[in-house]
This record gives sequence, C-alpha cells and structure tokens, in this order.
Amino acid sequence: MCVFCKIVAGEIPAYRLYEDDDVLAFLDITQGTKGHTLLIPKKHVNNVYEMDEALARTLFAKVPMLARALKKAFNPIGLNVVNNNDQPLQSVYHIHLHLIPRYENDGMKLTTLNRMSELKEDDYTAIQEAVVAHVNH
Amino acid sequence: MCVFCKIVAGEIPAYRLYEDDDVLAFLDITQGTKGHTLLIPKKHVNNVYEMDEALARTLFAKVPMLARALKKAFNPIGLNVVNNNDQPLQSVYHIHLHLIPRYENDGMKLTTLNRMSELKEDDYTAIQEAVVAHVNH
Repeated sequence: MCVFCKIVAGEIPAYRLYEDDDVLAFLDITQGTKGHTLLIPKKHVNNVYEMDEALARTLFAKVPMLARALKKAFNPIGLNVVNNNDQPLQSVYHIHLHLIPRYENDGMKLTTLNRMSELKEDDYTAIQEAVVAHVNH
Repeated sequence: MCVFCKIVAGEIPAYRLYEDDDVLAFLDITQGTKGHTLLIPKKHVNNVYEMDEALARTLFAKVPMLARALKKAFNPIGLNVVNNNDQPLQSVYHIHLHLIPRYENDGMKLTTLNRMSELKEDDYTAIQEAVVAHVNH
C-alpha cells in the first residue's frame, strides 16, 4: 500500500483538515509554507494521466472551499494550487494537489513564468495541431 | 471585459485547443515550455476564492483529458498543473489553470519543495486547528 493509502486507512497518522467519503485533505508534513496542504482522492490513482473525468470532478470540487479556509486562517498574500506528475517533482505516486499559501519572503521558488526562444506564427500553429490531434470531444 | 473574456468572445485571437459550452483551453501566448496550455471557465470568476463547487467540477473535469493529449502530443517527462491566486503570480484576474509539459533542461523554475524552520508537534497542531476552524463540511 502506498504512503497516502496508508494515511487514508489510518495506518500512518496525519494532521487531517477535511475528509469525506471520497477525498482527504491533510497538512504536508514538509510545510513549505504555513498551511501547506495536500488534497487527495481516497481511491488510489497514480497521477493525472490515470484520472477519469468523474474523479477529477470529485477531487477538485473541494479546492475552492479549502482555499477559502486557508485564506481565512492565515490571510496569505496569495495561494498556489499545484499538481505534479512524473519528473521532476512527483515523489509519491498517488495523485495529490498541493495548496500552498504564500507570504512575503516565504522562500518558495515557484513560478509559471518562463520563455522559450522566440516563436513564430507557424510554431504556435504546429504546437496547436499536435495537441488538437489528441483532444477528445 | 478582461482579456480572457475577450478571447472567449472571439474578440482576441488565440490558439484554441479545446472548447465546450463551459470551458476553453488555448496555448499560453508566452510558451514557458512547448505545449504550455491555459484552461479557463467561460464564466468570469476572478480566482479560486470566488469559485463555487459546481464551477470547480466543471473546470477541472477537463484536466486529465488535456494532460493526456499533451503527453501524447509531446511525450514530456512530466507535467505540472498550476493555478495561481493573487501574489506573487496572478496577472490576469480570470481564473486559469496552467498545464505545463516538462522536458529535460526546459528552464522552468517551478518547485513545490521548500522547508520552513523546523516544526514541532504543537506547531502542526496549531496550524491544523486554524484551518479546521474554517473548513465547511
């Protein structure tokens, strides 16, 4: 059984924040910032690639409520919701969402800002077509 | 009207990947990595704090399908799903999820790893109680 399944089963203790039949939220034992929370489905799924739409709905449904609870609890300047799949960041292979309240000078090095070398119209179109070929409607 | 509402309305062009009655996925015009995608609800909501559970279900339902499409298209080594709220990273105030395929040496500086100063049992319990006080069941 994976470490998060053991937490779900109560075999490993955790600082539990919220629980219902389908999901569990608890403090990340390595608090990156104050209130760093993990939200997981009780059902074992390795990562986002293995989720079906129903499980995605069930898991993510609780994100806004937890985000509001963290905001009320700690009044952070912001909050990141992050889900890491495979390299370079997934360590536990039981899908989990990080909810990371942000504070001034909190030391968290997390950015979505980056820039590939300059792209032309054709580059964007090629990327678009490659994805659209695999999108399911 | 905000820039993402203008994209929804077709007033600003975008490289569209997926669209239904409720959500739209398109390429981030600043491609942090190849395939960097934004997923938004068509309904304007500033950020996660303003989402209700129904909208969270609707928006996040499409994350696994898009993640799989990006994996099939580009065979990345991993993928991050990120939602930024307020400081330090939210620039457009229309909730959006980043789907960021990851590649070797892609230059993306995104980590959920950080460590606050050493915490004791009482510290964890205090954090837990502060959140639980605001959790809705």
